[in-house]
Amino acid sequence: MSKMIEYEDASEEVRAIYDDIRATRKTEYINNFWKALAQHPPTLRRTWQMVKEAMTGPGELDPLTRELIYVAVSVTNGCEYCIASHTAAARAKGMTDAMFGELMAIVGAANMTNRLAKGFQVEVDEIFKR
Amino acid sequence: MSKMIEYEDASEEVRAIYDDIRATRKTEYINNFWKALAQHPPTLRRTWQMVKEAMTGPGELDPLTRELIYVAVSVTNGCEYCIASHTAAARAKGMTDAMFGELMAIVGAANMTNRLAKGFQVEVDEIFKR
Amino acid sequence: MSKMIEYEDASEEVRAIYDDIRATRKTEYINNFWKALAQHPPTLRRTWQMVKEAMTGPGELDPLTRELIYVAVSVTNGCEYCIASHTAAARAKGMTDAMFGELMAIVGAANMTNRLAKGFQVEVDEIFKR
Amino acid sequence: MSKMIEYEDASEEVRAIYDDIRATRKTEYINNFWKALAQHPPTLRRTWQMVKEAMTGPGELDPLTRELIYVAVSVTNGCEYCIASHTAAARAKGMTDAMFGELMAIVGAANMTNRLAKGFQVEVDEIFKR
Amino acid sequence: MSKMIEYEDASEEVRAIYDDIRATRKTEYINNFWKALAQHPPTLRRTWQMVKEAMTGPGELDPLTRELIYVAVSVTNGCEYCIASHTAAARAKGMTDAMFGELMAIVGAANMTNRLAKGFQVEVDEIFKR
Amino acid sequence: MSKMIEYEDASEEVRAIYDDIRATRKTEYINNFWKALAQHPPTLRRTWQMVKEAMTGPGELDPLTRELIYVAVSVTNGCEYCIASHTAAARAKGMTDAMFGELMAIVGAANMTNRLAKGFQVEVDEIFKR
Repeated sequence: MSKMIEYEDASEEVRAIYDDIRATRKTEYINNFWKALAQHPPTLRRTWQMVKEAMTGPGELDPLTRELIYVAVSVTNGCEYCIASHTAAARAKGMTDAMFGELMAIVGAANMTNRLAKGFQVEVDEIFKR
Repeated sequence: MSKMIEYEDASEEVRAIYDDIRATRKTEYINNFWKALAQHPPTLRRTWQMVKEAMTGPGELDPLTRELIYVAVSVTNGCEYCIASHTAAARAKGMTDAMFGELMAIVGAANMTNRLAKGFQVEVDEIFKR
Repeated sequence: MSKMIEYEDASEEVRAIYDDIRATRKTEYINNFWKALAQHPPTLRRTWQMVKEAMTGPGELDPLTRELIYVAVSVTNGCEYCIASHTAAARAKGMTDAMFGELMAIVGAANMTNRLAKGFQVEVDEIFKR
Repeated sequence: MSKMIEYEDASEEVRAIYDDIRATRKTEYINNFWKALAQHPPTLRRTWQMVKEAMTGPGELDPLTRELIYVAVSVTNGCEYCIASHTAAARAKGMTDAMFGELMAIVGAANMTNRLAKGFQVEVDEIFKR
Repeated sequence: MSKMIEYEDASEEVRAIYDDIRATRKTEYINNFWKALAQHPPTLRRTWQMVKEAMTGPGELDPLTRELIYVAVSVTNGCEYCIASHTAAARAKGMTDAMFGELMAIVGAANMTNRLAKGFQVEVDEIFKR
Repeated sequence: MSKMIEYEDASEEVRAIYDDIRATRKTEYINNFWKALAQHPPTLRRTWQMVKEAMTGPGELDPLTRELIYVAVSVTNGCEYCIASHTAAARAKGMTDAMFGELMAIVGAANMTNRLAKGFQVEVDEIFKR
C-alpha cells in the first residue's frame, strides 16, 4: 500500500496544493490519491492542475456529465480506486441510482460492441469519415 | 475485412431487425457494424436489442450524454470503428467542437489518473465505501 | 510498417526457426509476424517456442478450442493482426460461421459483464474462493 | 462495496429473474453479481438475457468451451470477480487442473504476441484478408 | 481522420505552443498529434505542458529511458500512432535495433505474466507490501 | 486465492526450477507467483525461461531499465501483483523515490496521450513510417 504524506508533514509546495484542493472542492478532506501522489511533488502538481481544469474549468459540459464520463473510463479500465472515488463524486453532484444504472448499461453495451466491431473486423463506413 | 449482409440478401429475421434499426434511428442507412453482425443473426438480434434499450430506452440520461459516455468507453478501448461511428452520432445529437475537446480532456485525464492510482497502489478511502 | 526478414536474407539461426515453423504448421508460408520478429532473433526463438508449445504441445484441450481462446484474447485486446491471423487459423481447424458467431457472442457478453462487475463493485462470493 | 438486493426484498420483476437464474442453473444460489445488478432492474434483465443465451442457448460450442472463453476474456481484462466466478463455473463443467494450466498458457502467450504484433507494427498478410 | 490546424491557420495561443514545441524539440516539424489537438486549444496547452515536463523536465531518468517507457505503455495499449511516433523518437535518442528487440521481449513477457498473475489469482506476498 | 506448491511438496521438475530461480535471483525466497504457476509445471517452466531471459539475459538494456519497463506495463494493465512485485524489484535494483515519481509521470502522460491520439483519430505522419 502507498505511503501517504499528511498535511503536517508536507512541504510548503505540497501544502499549497492541498489548500487549493480544499478550496476548489469546498471540503477539508484530502483523499488518499493526492496524499500518495505527494511523494513526488511535480507529479502531484501537474496532475492536480490537469484534473482541476478538466473537471472544474469553464466549458459546455456540466459537472455531473463530466463525472459520468470519468466513471465510464474508470470502469472500462477496471480501476477500483477511481470507480469508488468518482462514483462518490458523481453522487455528490446529483447522480441518482437510476442514472448510475443507466450509466452502467451504456458502459457495458459499449464494451460489448467495441469487441464485436473488432472481432468482426468491421470497416469504418465512408459517412463516418470526415 | 468483414463479410456484410445487404438487405436484399438478408433473411426475414434479419430484415425485420434492419427495419427496426431504420425506424428507431429515422434513417435509411444501415451501417457496416449491423451488416457484419448479420452473419450471425442471434448476435445481431441480442446486440441491437441491448444497444437500442441502453441508448434510446426511457431513462434520466439525455441522448447526447449517452453518446458522450459511449465515445469515452470506445476511446479508452481504442476501438476505431466505435470512435468513428459514435463521434458521428454524438455530433448528430448536438456535440459541438468544444464539447468534443472537453470530452477528450476528461477521458485523457481519467486514463492518466487511473494509472497513477494503480501505480501508487492507493487504498480506497473509508468515506468512499458505502 | 515493420521491416521483414525473408528466408534468403536470414541467418542460420533464423532459418532453422523458419524451417521448424514450416514443419510444425505443414505449410511453406511464413507469415509476417515471424518475419518481423526475426529482426531480433532471441525474441523470435523464445516466442515461437512459447506459442508452439502452448498451441501444439500435448494437452487436454483440442487444437480448435485453443484457437478459439486465442481469438477471444486478441479480440478483447483489439489486436487486428492477431484477430485476422488466428481467425484464419481457427477456420482452418474447423471453426464454422456459427461457431464464430457464438464465440463473438460470448466475448461480447464477457466484456460487458466484466465492466458491470467492476462498476457495481461486486465482492467475490465466499463460495468462489477456494 | 455494492449494495445487494436479497430475494425477500426484491420486486416481482427481480424475483422472476432470480427464479429464472435458479431454474436455468439448477441451484438455489444467486451470486453477488446478480444481486448487485438488481439495483437497476432493466440492466439485470437485459444482462441475464444476454448471458443466458450466449452461455446456455443452442449452438455448436459445448458448455465447457464457452466457460473457457469467458475465463480467457476475464483474465485478459483483469476482472477478479469474473475470474473467480467463471473459473468456478468452468470447474463445475469439467475443467481439470491440467486444462486450467493449458488455458492460462494460451491466454499468456496470446497476450504476449498481441503486444509483439502491435510493437513490431506488423501488417496483416494478404492471405488473412478475406 | 482528424481535422488538423496548420500554423498559418492557427490562433495566437496555438502558434505560441507550436513555437514552444519547435524550440523544445529543435525541429521545425510539428507532428499530426499536436495539429489535431489544436482543435481544442486548452487540451493542446495542458497536454503539451504535461508531456514536455514528463519527457524533458529535470529528473534522474535519461531521455532514452523515458522514451522506452513511453513505447512500452503505447504498445500495451495498442495505440498505433503513439507506437509509431515514440519508436521514431526513441531511435532518434539512440535506441538500437537490439534495444528495441529487448524492449519488445520485456513488454511481451510482462503482458504474459500480468495475465498469469490475474488468472492464477495470486495474492501479493507480505514482503512486497511496504 | 491461488493454491500454492511449496518446495517440500514439489516434484523433481518443479524443484529444479525453484532452484534455478533461487540461484538466478540470489535469494532463498520463492514468491507466490511461481508457487502458483507450479500447479501447471509446463507453464511454470516456459514462463520462468521467458522471464529469466528477458530480464537477466545478455543485452544492451541494464537491469534497472528493464524493471522500469516491466512496472510501466504492469501499471498500464492494472495488475496489482505485478506492480507490487516489480516495484520491489526495481527498488532493489536502485530505483529511487524520485525515479519512481518520474516513471509514474511518464506512464500517466502516455496513457493520456494514447487516448487523445485515438479519440482525435490522428493519422500516422509519413515521417514516422519507415
